[in-house]
Amino acid sequence: MDNYSVIGKRIKNRDAVTKVTGKAVFAADIKLKGMLYGKILRSKAAHARILSIDVSEARQLKGVKAVITCEDTPLIKYSIHPLMADKLAFEDKKVRYIGDEIAAVAAVDEATAIKALSLIKVDLEELEGLFDPVEAMKEGAPKIHDHLETNVSKHFKMDCGDIEQGFARSDFIIEKTFTTHAQSHSSIETHACVADCGLDNQVTMWVNTQAPHPLKHRISQVLAIEPEKIRVIPPYIGGGFGSKIDLDTTHIACVLLSKKTGRPVKIINTREEQFTATRMRHPSITELKFGFNHDGTIVAKQARAIIDNGAYNSHGPSVMGYHNVMFSSLYRVENISYEGSLVYTNKNYGGACRGYGDPQATFAQETMMDMIAEKLDMDPIELRLKNSNHPDEKTANAVEITSCGLTETLEAVKKASNWSEKKKTKKKYRGLGVASMIYTGGGSRGSGFNYSGATMKMDASGTIFLNTGATDIGQGSNTTLTMIAAEILGMEPEQIRLITSDTDTTLPCMGTFGSRVTFCAGNAVSQAALNLKEKIIARAADILGEPVVRLEIKARNVCVAQEPEKGIAFSQIGAVSYSQKQEVLTGAGYYDGPEIAKDFDPKSYYAYPGPAMSFATHLAEVEVDPESGRVELINFYAAHDSGKVINPLLAEGQIEGGAVMGFGWALTEELKFENGRILNPNFHDYKLFSIKDIPQITPILVETIDPNGPFGAKGLGECAMVSTAPAILNAICDAVGVRICDLPATSEKVFNHIKLK
Amino acid sequence: MDNYSVIGKRIKNRDAVTKVTGKAVFAADIKLKGMLYGKILRSKAAHARILSIDVSEARQLKGVKAVITCEDTPLIKYSIHPLMADKLAFEDKKVRYIGDEIAAVAAVDEATAIKALSLIKVDLEELEGLFDPVEAMKEGAPKIHDHLETNVSKHFKMDCGDIEQGFARSDFIIEKTFTTHAQSHSSIETHACVADCGLDNQVTMWVNTQAPHPLKHRISQVLAIEPEKIRVIPPYIGGGFGSKIDLDTTHIACVLLSKKTGRPVKIINTREEQFTATRMRHPSITELKFGFNHDGTIVAKQARAIIDNGAYNSHGPSVMGYHNVMFSSLYRVENISYEGSLVYTNKNYGGACRGYGDPQATFAQETMMDMIAEKLDMDPIELRLKNSNHPDEKTANAVEITSCGLTETLEAVKKASNWSEKKKTKKKYRGLGVASMIYTGGGSRGSGFNYSGATMKMDASGTIFLNTGATDIGQGSNTTLTMIAAEILGMEPEQIRLITSDTDTTLPCMGTFGSRVTFCAGNAVSQAALNLKEKIIARAADILGEPVVRLEIKARNVCVAQEPEKGIAFSQIGAVSYSQKQEVLTGAGYYDGPEIAKDFDPKSYYAYPGPAMSFATHLAEVEVDPESGRVELINFYAAHDSGKVINPLLAEGQIEGGAVMGFGWALTEELKFENGRILNPNFHDYKLFSIKDIPQITPILVETIDPNGPFGAKGLGECAMVSTAPAILNAICDAVGVRICDLPATSEKVFNHIKLK
Repeated sequence: MDNYSVIGKRIKNRDAVTKVTGKAVFAADIKLKGMLYGKILRSKAAHARILSIDVSEARQLKGVKAVITCEDTPLIKYSIHPLMADKLAFEDKKVRYIGDEIAAVAAVDEATAIKALSLIKVDLEELEGLFDPVEAMKEGAPKIHDHLETNVSKHFKMDCGDIEQGFARSDFIIEKTFTTHAQSHSSIETHACVADCGLDNQVTMWVNTQAPHPLKHRISQVLAIEPEKIRVIPPYIGGGFGSKIDLDTTHIACVLLSKKTGRPVKIINTREEQFTATRMRHPSITELKFGFNHDGTIVAKQARAIIDNGAYNSHGPSVMGYHNVMFSSLYRVENISYEGSLVYTNKNYGGACRGYGDPQATFAQETMMDMIAEKLDMDPIELRLKNSNHPDEKTANAVEITSCGLTETLEAVKKASNWSEKKKTKKKYRGLGVASMIYTGGGSRGSGFNYSGATMKMDASGTIFLNTGATDIGQGSNTTLTMIAAEILGMEPEQIRLITSDTDTTLPCMGTFGSRVTFCAGNAVSQAALNLKEKIIARAADILGEPVVRLEIKARNVCVAQEPEKGIAFSQIGAVSYSQKQEVLTGAGYYDGPEIAKDFDPKSYYAYPGPAMSFATHLAEVEVDPESGRVELINFYAAHDSGKVINPLLAEGQIEGGAVMGFGWALTEELKFENGRILNPNFHDYKLFSIKDIPQITPILVETIDPNGPFGAKGLGECAMVSTAPAILNAICDAVGVRICDLPATSEKVFNHIKLK
Repeated sequence: MDNYSVIGKRIKNRDAVTKVTGKAVFAADIKLKGMLYGKILRSKAAHARILSIDVSEARQLKGVKAVITCEDTPLIKYSIHPLMADKLAFEDKKVRYIGDEIAAVAAVDEATAIKALSLIKVDLEELEGLFDPVEAMKEGAPKIHDHLETNVSKHFKMDCGDIEQGFARSDFIIEKTFTTHAQSHSSIETHACVADCGLDNQVTMWVNTQAPHPLKHRISQVLAIEPEKIRVIPPYIGGGFGSKIDLDTTHIACVLLSKKTGRPVKIINTREEQFTATRMRHPSITELKFGFNHDGTIVAKQARAIIDNGAYNSHGPSVMGYHNVMFSSLYRVENISYEGSLVYTNKNYGGACRGYGDPQATFAQETMMDMIAEKLDMDPIELRLKNSNHPDEKTANAVEITSCGLTETLEAVKKASNWSEKKKTKKKYRGLGVASMIYTGGGSRGSGFNYSGATMKMDASGTIFLNTGATDIGQGSNTTLTMIAAEILGMEPEQIRLITSDTDTTLPCMGTFGSRVTFCAGNAVSQAALNLKEKIIARAADILGEPVVRLEIKARNVCVAQEPEKGIAFSQIGAVSYSQKQEVLTGAGYYDGPEIAKDFDPKSYYAYPGPAMSFATHLAEVEVDPESGRVELINFYAAHDSGKVINPLLAEGQIEGGAVMGFGWALTEELKFENGRILNPNFHDYKLFSIKDIPQITPILVETIDPNGPFGAKGLGECAMVSTAPAILNAICDAVGVRICDLPATSEKVFNHIKLK
């Protein structure tokens, strides 16, 4: 066993006390002198031409300090994909969904701002709305974006091996279409931003963003402000799940309104705005065709996917890329064909959402796997083991797998759930279902970058500082990153002074998404700590007159390994360095990997450049009430290969949280649209799983040691969600024999399926 | 002439717009969630034994969240001088002046906190109060500090040359006693602190301190909190003048009350508290004996000084050291004797105050110089020129002078004021007076340290960051330090992103005092910028394939000197460094000088280790109304040798501000005591000079190039005040023939002197 003193320990979340005692300051808590309140006017039409906007009456309302429209912006379009930018902060010619931004107001209080919105006159010419991507793809459909030739934002086809030969060689073929629905991120904290722009042209923003450094550069680009004028400071953040990566009109409006008024401006989304005007999980339609043999070998697999983009791109193009990568990389299949279309519709648009296209792909594939097992009368776990990925393999779509514990996760849930025994003694209306998944364990360089930087220093008092651009949005990176540094520097994590996220005081980090923080920022921190450790020991060697090789760090002392009493404290090393050597000891670390393969295709993500892949298998035990169709979760087992686990306590928390998000997506959570309008934009009508709905969840950490991760670690955050829904739906089928291929499996839907059986 | 593009330019204060538009956030503006308001219970007795303190009733008052006394502290004494610590946050056994801290309260609002103070029962046994240092020095006087043998906190005698032989060789001898009075710093912002200590044991303090890094360590020591738990963040600061260097009970109380309640606590001094319970300029009695020859040569000078310490040490011991150094170093005199006693009294205690003992010494010496000139019937300027310091000399008290423009300052005011002509055509009741001074131009290593650190970086966007521990308290260091960096990096100062003071994000800096920031922090910044410049050019050379020697920086481009179109922008260098070389270019700089001479005496400050000395001559033209004694300032000329002036606009501002502080000390400002009680603790009874009292001030910058200062610069902040009072009092004597040797020269005093003539 490894011999770590910090890594692998169940250390409590560094921010826990601050959060549970209510002391944590979130963006909504920030109040600045003379602060104004902003509100955004959003389109009530799903698709319309803007004929005129008259803000004169709103401007005259007492207490209103500024009203802005597209005329106050440089009209620079944005998106996560610079070459596919399609969104203006405030639309100028057309609105494309109910919620699209038209104008913004800053006033002395929120009530006045809301009143002012009602005084803005917008003259719209309504256009035919497109709400179904299949309709939107048809020839002759109205165009949502005038500058494009069709409503297909992105389309690609990827072929590996020979799909037709593969099908020809297969003993059996199954075809099936799977659909998934829109899910709201539902982070407990809504989007909030305070911007303060003085007449000195400086811009300071307190934003609950998952990616402060990129946000700074996006603000710089979209508003044509020099980056050195901008500072982004994320306060404590109440969850993101992908919704807080993008540049958002709330950010732009805050800055513009503050610039115009010379006063700080705060905008906080209402929950309704959060539902209707921030991103959501992309709905999808995936037609699968699988060819397989008697022994369970998958010979060929084909997917034809339509991803419903909504009105704008946001992350859509790469979400579709991930839909392909994760579909194509899971299991050892030689012949693969994938064709995808990302299609604009006049609905709220999709964005990054925990899993990033993988849940849609995995729902389809993992349901298909159970259909194959059923066809072959084979144990679903055996089928998966038969096709399981292996360590150090290169998949057909050229994904380089390093560590891989997929087999171990399958075996782990099998054992923990008492699968074999329960399968034999199946009770009526009870069922077991299993589903596996693959996902990146450390972001990717798909966009060309995957950077995280960290610096460390020892100050004159011997205090150790860690500065990292990584942002803790609740997932616990403040804890795990200080653990990595503490392990290397032979101290306790809470003894490290931590500075994160602030763009002025940390090295750029791409952000908290793609399950990349532990891996990428962790590698940067590890390097910075090793770098600093070397300098500390060298300085101690110098002071003590001992060779470096004899020295080691123990409890903030550098001492001779064999004679622990012969040592020098960090406090003395810091003091001597500063006052005598006139130097502050520092370390820097930087990660931006992996190498991009020559044959990488940025469109399909063939040869996807992820630095490591994580794996998991989820296993659900359900009981279905045939009278109501209600699915009760009885047990849930989640085995994850996240490499070496830095902090099992936090990892288990992630697994539990991810599972619960998957429960909702599988069974109860669904944004309902009617002509583009969301009918249930509140937590009353949009049903999250609450504490009393949640079954016993058993997290299982199947540790591999990744060769490239810090201490062998890989990412976990998104993985925790991905294979939840298919496990549950497979269990429903096991319980009552109905195969539901369109999410979610609401009680009504299950009931209707049972009735039709 | 030098060929600088930034240095020497009249660039407007970097913070000006933020301040004048009211956007600057001062400590009093800070409001945190759940914040409580603190108030301090102060002694109403000047000298008394504490018999008991009963806080039970105060604790029961509704809205009171905590009441603390000495029992809640570790009873660790403090002072600026660690070995002479004599002050407790809350006194345990005795109170020693009216204002001494006994207890503190935190409540939901200020009114409740004030009410609670009135409910604390303090049982005191009154003791005889000592208000006159001469009385306090007498044998048998009651002891103010029980652990000391007498009321003399510090005493020393310094002899250079042979004082008796010197007097014996002199043609004339004059003896005279000079007294100076207590002055309040009167910074427009009072002491304010917000401390936030959660259950996570972290301490964050927003304090208007002149020395955030030392404050952090003093809090750590006095409250026995590990330094890595503490963060000090100075917001914008409304002046200090020395009053905001010390650790103060407001700081300690905020931390303890916040720790006790788990809520943030704010304490803001009222103006009355600021007058009665923060530091003041030490009153002094200086007996001078000067021996001189017919030709004006000063042969010998002797001083016997008593510095009225008040109840506690604070900066007293080093203020008396400076009193000696500045007295002894000004002018080339071979035989010097100085004897000083720092004496406790039961009054509010002195602290650092612009000039730090020098105004008291200079008032005495420069009045004496005019008395000598009068005796010899010699022009006062000629007398001073005769004895003027020279560059590169070592004074009799072993102060190493590098650059020295004293002679030039004398000549400059003479010319600017039209001295010779006006002296010839003297009008009745009009007079001219002159006074010179010497002061440190860059702090000193008298305490063993004189440190300032700076780091710089270029981020991925090519933005240049400067992090410095130096704190701008209004004097303009944010502007001058970015100018130094900008000059070196070939850019505009406002293009540099600046981070200052925050102990988490800047290297330690000793603080803003001792006229040290431009010199010490400036040297650190200069070194950091040169360091960064070298790396930027090396990286550019690497990218461009050009040798380093051919490259130069112009407007954020590194280009080939002869072919400016062949270059690369900072933004590209930053991007390449970060994404391809995985490195952020950084530079670090550190200053901690000068070398301490072997014969340095830490008691008397013989061989004072200042890195450079600044010089000045002030010249006042006054008109005295013989009917009222009122002194009207007609003209004021202030010539300063501050080395190379980084920013003449700000330097002139400093000179004007310093002169005005001197006007007040000379004529109107005096803290009046009655049995230890300050009678005029408000701006109605304590008369500051206001805008309509201020004459035309003509600042003159006599530039020398100091060999050790950044670009040749030396400090100026305190110098601007020092020789103002003697210039005015010499002018009064010139106008109406009365020689006033006890400050201030109020109208009443001048009138009485005229009457008695």
